[in-house]
Amino acid sequence: MRELLSEGIRSTPASFVRGILKVAADPSIISFAGGLPNPISFPQDALSESMQRIVKDYGSKVFQYSLTAGLPELRRYIAQRYKAKHGLDITEDEIIITTGSQQALDLIAKVLLDRGDGVVVENPTYLAAIQAFSMSMPKFYPVDLNDEGMDVDGLRRALENDVKFVYAIPNFQNPTGLTYSAACRERVFAALDERDTVLIEDDPYGELMFGGTRLPYIGAGRLKNSILLGTFSKTCTPGMRTGYIVCKNAELMKHISVAKEASDLHTNIFSQYLIYDYLTHNDYDAHISRITELYRKQADAMISAMRKYFPPTVGYTEPRGGMFLWVTLPDGMSAMSLFPKALENKVAFVPGDPFYVDRKDANTMRLNFTNADCATIEEGIRRLGAILKSQ
Amino acid sequence: MRELLSEGIRSTPASFVRGILKVAADPSIISFAGGLPNPISFPQDALSESMQRIVKDYGSKVFQYSLTAGLPELRRYIAQRYKAKHGLDITEDEIIITTGSQQALDLIAKVLLDRGDGVVVENPTYLAAIQAFSMSMPKFYPVDLNDEGMDVDGLRRALENDVKFVYAIPNFQNPTGLTYSAACRERVFAALDERDTVLIEDDPYGELMFGGTRLPYIGAGRLKNSILLGTFSKTCTPGMRTGYIVCKNAELMKHISVAKEASDLHTNIFSQYLIYDYLTHNDYDAHISRITELYRKQADAMISAMRKYFPPTVGYTEPRGGMFLWVTLPDGMSAMSLFPKALENKVAFVPGDPFYVDRKDANTMRLNFTNADCATIEEGIRRLGAILKSQ
Repeated sequence: MRELLSEGIRSTPASFVRGILKVAADPSIISFAGGLPNPISFPQDALSESMQRIVKDYGSKVFQYSLTAGLPELRRYIAQRYKAKHGLDITEDEIIITTGSQQALDLIAKVLLDRGDGVVVENPTYLAAIQAFSMSMPKFYPVDLNDEGMDVDGLRRALENDVKFVYAIPNFQNPTGLTYSAACRERVFAALDERDTVLIEDDPYGELMFGGTRLPYIGAGRLKNSILLGTFSKTCTPGMRTGYIVCKNAELMKHISVAKEASDLHTNIFSQYLIYDYLTHNDYDAHISRITELYRKQADAMISAMRKYFPPTVGYTEPRGGMFLWVTLPDGMSAMSLFPKALENKVAFVPGDPFYVDRKDANTMRLNFTNADCATIEEGIRRLGAILKSQ
Repeated sequence: MRELLSEGIRSTPASFVRGILKVAADPSIISFAGGLPNPISFPQDALSESMQRIVKDYGSKVFQYSLTAGLPELRRYIAQRYKAKHGLDITEDEIIITTGSQQALDLIAKVLLDRGDGVVVENPTYLAAIQAFSMSMPKFYPVDLNDEGMDVDGLRRALENDVKFVYAIPNFQNPTGLTYSAACRERVFAALDERDTVLIEDDPYGELMFGGTRLPYIGAGRLKNSILLGTFSKTCTPGMRTGYIVCKNAELMKHISVAKEASDLHTNIFSQYLIYDYLTHNDYDAHISRITELYRKQADAMISAMRKYFPPTVGYTEPRGGMFLWVTLPDGMSAMSLFPKALENKVAFVPGDPFYVDRKDANTMRLNFTNADCATIEEGIRRLGAILKSQ
């Protein structure tokens, strides 16, 4: 069997998170392990209305094959929203709809990576990005995160190598919940300016801001090889798998389009019509406000409970948005080795290991606060605190 | 720019068909170029009913993240259908739902191919399979097709090389419309039996049979490394991008599942619930009968018109199912060079070239008969005949 398999797939780790989803689906377990939006964030009634309307308005078009780049109306809507919210000057031709943001990572790897090419990632970073890039067997250059964002000195050192792209999640990062400061953004921009290196700004959580001022993108609209990724998974519905790539480099987009054709021809067109109709018949911003208000309360509940139940030797981030926070245990304590004990005590988290390209038995863990109510969050953190105190 | 791009993407051709879709969308052009099902094949009213029902029955589950392998109920339905129709003994664990069949080709390439690995394809073959496999830069071994199916002596010669898999479309092949005879199927099976080489039987058109007896699969249920691909695109809706992989080799499926995770996490779950609900609340076989009856008439109309309008030096296949037929022009006549003239005369086809891995200026063309009514088909063939006669 082994000799049949490609080297790429043998280098690609299975997802720890998806692997434990079945375990965590046990209703007696309080799970902070997944990355599921709260079902309340799905505008279910409005989407049901939109379904009826698009079948009536567009007929067989919503069921037929369609364009590789995606529904022009939806791409135009996305472009206009970036203009309105961020002052970015984007046209529909600079947007390709993808089958969730995850596919964007796969397409970018296909278009840019040969074996051994350099990829800079945050340390820690989104585990399924590690997966998507690993298929191409790149060399990873992890750059540490701190409270300000990416360690820019570390980034500059990494860029001395042959690096095809830098992959960053500057807003409410997965897994840490950290957000790059305005100063850090400028310094990352300066490190990449005048270079061919592509900057991928993955922004699935940017809309989930609990308050404060929206910070500008690092590369979007400024760097010649900037790629911005977005999605409707966290603000509308993840089950519909609708994300997108924004990139003003036409040559790069031509190749991404070929990779998209080869990968799945085009993204589900029914979903694209559905989301477009939803966006244009409802107050999307009001809906997002309801979600962020909910998540802010849940994040507060988690942080309050950690203050109450965690030993003082345990640190954690206090995100101002997004879906996750990051716990740091005392040096030398392995979160992975705590995991079976946590399951015994009916609480689940993701140990830090799968978020690193270069660490094992890390003393960190990711907690998701979006998919449980405040009372459940408190009870889960109480259970986790008891385990941590017993170590 | 060039130095940024991967060698894989630089080796991957853009799709000629998708490239001309915009041209062919001009309503004054009669297009035999696409591969679009007739919109009448979409059970639009029944799907609209199913939409309402699944939101009511399953609530937020149809909008949430879901399992990588796909909806268990849908996989069970598919397994039971193969049991009932083909006597195949398959369980839901031996099925992974994919984002259209196209994604299955991408996943298989990822899991099996390193650069330079051998891939046997029919000559000609499905152009987007060439695309999907090209990303991995394999060595293609094209094997000729004849009226019986694959040239098995050619296949045996090709198998003397290091070949990871054989890719075949035994039923109503795209692009030729040819179907392997029972004897040819047995001979292909014998050539692959006792080998590790994977046989991929891609079967998007098998249900679209105009009459006669269903022939058995070559490898499914018999070869240890058999992969069978299916889809709901031709019998229900292509816009929903719902296909699947059937494979009894658990080790291979484990790796395909990791590749699927890395590619798009999972296939649109709303669509999976929708198709499952449609299948279990309607008479799917009766629906398929209506489609095949329609397509049989359209194929007959095309063949009758070709008899009437084509010069006798031009040959063509007479498919007993599927969506396409294949025209062979006199030796030395390039279908590609006729293409601009055809557009001038408001008729479009796909020249043979993109279906070959080793030919240019081929004297062949693919015609699609599913997406125009009989009168339009006759008029299009009349226009095409006039061009052919003027050569």
